Amino acid sequence: MKSHGQPAWELLLPAAAAPARRRGRALQEALREAVRSGRLAAGTRLPSTRALAADLGVSRGLVTEAYEQLTAEGYLRSDRGAGTWVGDAARSRLGGTRARGAAPSGGGDLGRAGGARAGGGLDPAPGSPAPGADTLPRGTGAPPRGTGAPARGTPAVLVDFRPGTPDLSLFPRAAWSAAQRAVLARLPHPALGYPDPRGLPELREALADMLTRRRGVVADPERLVVCSGVAQASSLLGFVLRARGLDAVGVEDPGSPEHGRLFASTGLDTLWLPLDEEGLLPEPLTASGVRAVVVTPSHQFPSGISWSAERRAALLDWARAVDGYVLEDDYDGDFRYDRAPVGALQGLDPERVVYAGSVSKSLAPGLRLGWMLVPEALLAEVVERKRTMDLGNPVLDQAVLAEFVARGAYDRQLRRCQRAYRERRDALLSALAEHLPGTGVSGIAAGLHVIARVPARYGPPERFLARSAEAGVALRPLEEYGTARPGDGDVRLVLGYAHLAPSVVASGIRRVAEAVGRG
Amino acid sequence: MKSHGQPAWELLLPAAAAPARRRGRALQEALREAVRSGRLAAGTRLPSTRALAADLGVSRGLVTEAYEQLTAEGYLRSDRGAGTWVGDAARSRLGGTRARGAAPSGGGDLGRAGGARAGGGLDPAPGSPAPGADTLPRGTGAPPRGTGAPARGTPAVLVDFRPGTPDLSLFPRAAWSAAQRAVLARLPHPALGYPDPRGLPELREALADMLTRRRGVVADPERLVVCSGVAQASSLLGFVLRARGLDAVGVEDPGSPEHGRLFASTGLDTLWLPLDEEGLLPEPLTASGVRAVVVTPSHQFPSGISWSAERRAALLDWARAVDGYVLEDDYDGDFRYDRAPVGALQGLDPERVVYAGSVSKSLAPGLRLGWMLVPEALLAEVVERKRTMDLGNPVLDQAVLAEFVARGAYDRQLRRCQRAYRERRDALLSALAEHLPGTGVSGIAAGLHVIARVPARYGPPERFLARSAEAGVALRPLEEYGTARPGDGDVRLVLGYAHLAPSVVASGIRRVAEAVGRG
Repeated sequence: MKSHGQPAWELLLPAAAAPARRRGRALQEALREAVRSGRLAAGTRLPSTRALAADLGVSRGLVTEAYEQLTAEGYLRSDRGAGTWVGDAARSRLGGTRARGAAPSGGGDLGRAGGARAGGGLDPAPGSPAPGADTLPRGTGAPPRGTGAPARGTPAVLVDFRPGTPDLSLFPRAAWSAAQRAVLARLPHPALGYPDPRGLPELREALADMLTRRRGVVADPERLVVCSGVAQASSLLGFVLRARGLDAVGVEDPGSPEHGRLFASTGLDTLWLPLDEEGLLPEPLTASGVRAVVVTPSHQFPSGISWSAERRAALLDWARAVDGYVLEDDYDGDFRYDRAPVGALQGLDPERVVYAGSVSKSLAPGLRLGWMLVPEALLAEVVERKRTMDLGNPVLDQAVLAEFVARGAYDRQLRRCQRAYRERRDALLSALAEHLPGTGVSGIAAGLHVIARVPARYGPPERFLARSAEAGVALRPLEEYGTARPGDGDVRLVLGYAHLAPSVVASGIRRVAEAVGRG
Repeated sequence: MKSHGQPAWELLLPAAAAPARRRGRALQEALREAVRSGRLAAGTRLPSTRALAADLGVSRGLVTEAYEQLTAEGYLRSDRGAGTWVGDAARSRLGGTRARGAAPSGGGDLGRAGGARAGGGLDPAPGSPAPGADTLPRGTGAPPRGTGAPARGTPAVLVDFRPGTPDLSLFPRAAWSAAQRAVLARLPHPALGYPDPRGLPELREALADMLTRRRGVVADPERLVVCSGVAQASSLLGFVLRARGLDAVGVEDPGSPEHGRLFASTGLDTLWLPLDEEGLLPEPLTASGVRAVVVTPSHQFPSGISWSAERRAALLDWARAVDGYVLEDDYDGDFRYDRAPVGALQGLDPERVVYAGSVSKSLAPGLRLGWMLVPEALLAEVVERKRTMDLGNPVLDQAVLAEFVARGAYDRQLRRCQRAYRERRDALLSALAEHLPGTGVSGIAAGLHVIARVPARYGPPERFLARSAEAGVALRPLEEYGTARPGDGDVRLVLGYAHLAPSVVASGIRRVAEAVGRG
């Protein structure tokens, strides 16, 4: 994903490249289509005619004409002084399905939207779903609190620190394309038939090797189930546990609010369980009566702690005592910066821990490819659920990933991301030290975000967030991830940085500092 | 998929191409790996050493040596006179998970298995899952009745008429590969992020155009949801209907027994509803009390009838009267041979009919790509289910299919399949007329199978099926698809032909005739 300083107007580039006599019309058509299809979501702010003309390499007159025409047609709205933005009338023309069609995109717990997708670099107004709305358990679907209802003319989001998205421009297109060609050239015909619901044998073997090596799990290919990602892994496990009579799942507090809707779809309630700096507190866990929990022990989301050895052991003791299960979401286990990786919990008891991971952070969320390692006792039920859910993942994608892992390209990609993300993290820490001195940071050793605790002298949290939003910086406070409501006046933020270039990280923090005033 | 006359030993070819001094060992390793990974399923019969050596272009001594070595190691079993086959000891070596790991593959209602997949051209013994085990509602997971339990040395399946699989060798690899390259070259970075759960806008638009043109549906891209195929469409709808309080779904009798387990996973019972030559009988439908049915009106599976206009209208009247819904599985709507296509039922009432289709028959089941057109009233719930199930289909596959459809390549592929399948159908009809005169055929105007009614004079059904199996021909009787048990002594068969070359079709029917004796 490009930073917001460099809007992704790629979708208009083909039109801009049209022959001169058709260019104006092509531009209008492309813009109209982008609005109609939702690629430009309602509320998206458009760049100035000057800026867009420069980006596209066309005359400013053509852009002005396109804006005026589409404003006249109702696709766009404009307000002298406040600029031009996408109106909300377009979709209703397609047959009255706007309310329904828009509903799934509209900031639900898991909220990620068609409009949000292409809007990655397109300055969605505050209140639109975040550009990189995240998978479980790291969603950014809801608008930041404290920014107020979005209004026409509200400043656009220039820098978005809401966590959850990797840098999509790091996706290794050439290597992936080479692997695709190799797979289509060698795959025997029968492999194109109905898949094994557990996944392609060659992928299960490649992943088992890779996970054993990198994450210290016990990975028997026969226990590995390829799935669409951690969200599907959670859903599969949820259905299995519900069918076994469970009625609730415990989640870390703080943790991801997105679990609620996901497990609700399987018939399970979710219960917040308190966490301290070592992991889940044993007593409340025992007292809760749940028999299944979802945890992120390697780099807890969002706090960033790594569970202590004692708490890991206590969790597994608990699981054995209640005949329960632990879902380990190893959502960013691949990104470690300053210390040796923490081995996965699953390695300690593969019969009590369901381990889940995906390529969403290392390659791209759009691939929808992940894996789970399943205890023997649950395996047949999980596979049967996978089968009735979709019969198995697409075969070609699986074969390409197998090829990619086996060639060593996956390890290379991880090293590349790690270098890029470490640089961005360092830029963030430097910027905080320079522009918001006194800010404490934690959870910095790994992952794609840090926790920042901005001292109360920079203003009360509501004012801090409101001023930042007014300055075009989207922030997500820690209190959106759980039940805690600290009253010390400090501002606690979950700052995602992986999708932002170092210079954008720095300018974003500077903007915040200027907006809230020096402490 | 290759015919059984040309086993797909591609997986051994790389080993056969190894330098001479390593060739023997490479061959043994490849064969061992094929058994261990399940690509060669337990019970699979191996070709003679002479035949395999000829196929691979290696000396017969190397093959004999490989067979002997792997027999000594327990991977293979052999019996002088009965040949060599894959033993069942290999998987248990991988860590004691064989029973669980094998369970999901084992002939369940939806039964399609890892072992069966690669076994497409590899002569699975009777009792193994069919090579082309089908998606809903046309499964062939269960072994044909009447062939008895598989025994070591039982004749291999030489010709498999069980329905459900297209010819996988027709998959357009070069065109698909070109579309993949084009997509990776043009897709903007943000498109690699979390997908719209409804599907990629450009694919929804391309499919809506294509379906409107080819199938006469009402296809608004805003109502189209991309999914993993008809099985997932059924599952999505099942969950939505269950959440609305329904407890059962009606299915056509005869129809597919696979619905049972699929809808059971969503909490719904299934109820057989009687069909005559015009469609579902209105009175039993009304009396049943169900408020949802699954139907195949264009080319009913398995009978092959096309529903009459009156019954279509009556079904929709019923749906409106009970505030119910119809799932139209347009499983082979793309393959018509002798008459104009029958328009989809959905076109008559898009608010009562959920239309579902996929590329499983036209391209490959392994792609796991399909679509549904959803009534407005159900849309938000279906999309929300899709989202909690997997967050949406993989983006690159969707973009490739969009490219493929938009380029006209999909239409070309359908024409190519249609020509091939018509030729095979004609070969089947000729062979039946020549070798089993008196046999009645129906359902021949479309699809990938016909219904054959072999007169009683060729022997009682049990004997007919047993003798055919002994002669190496796998047949599936109509009575496996529903509750009817005709007592007139005729043998009713569902003969799939699409995956068999014309010469194989002919030789298969000749074998049956020779085995059962002329009537």
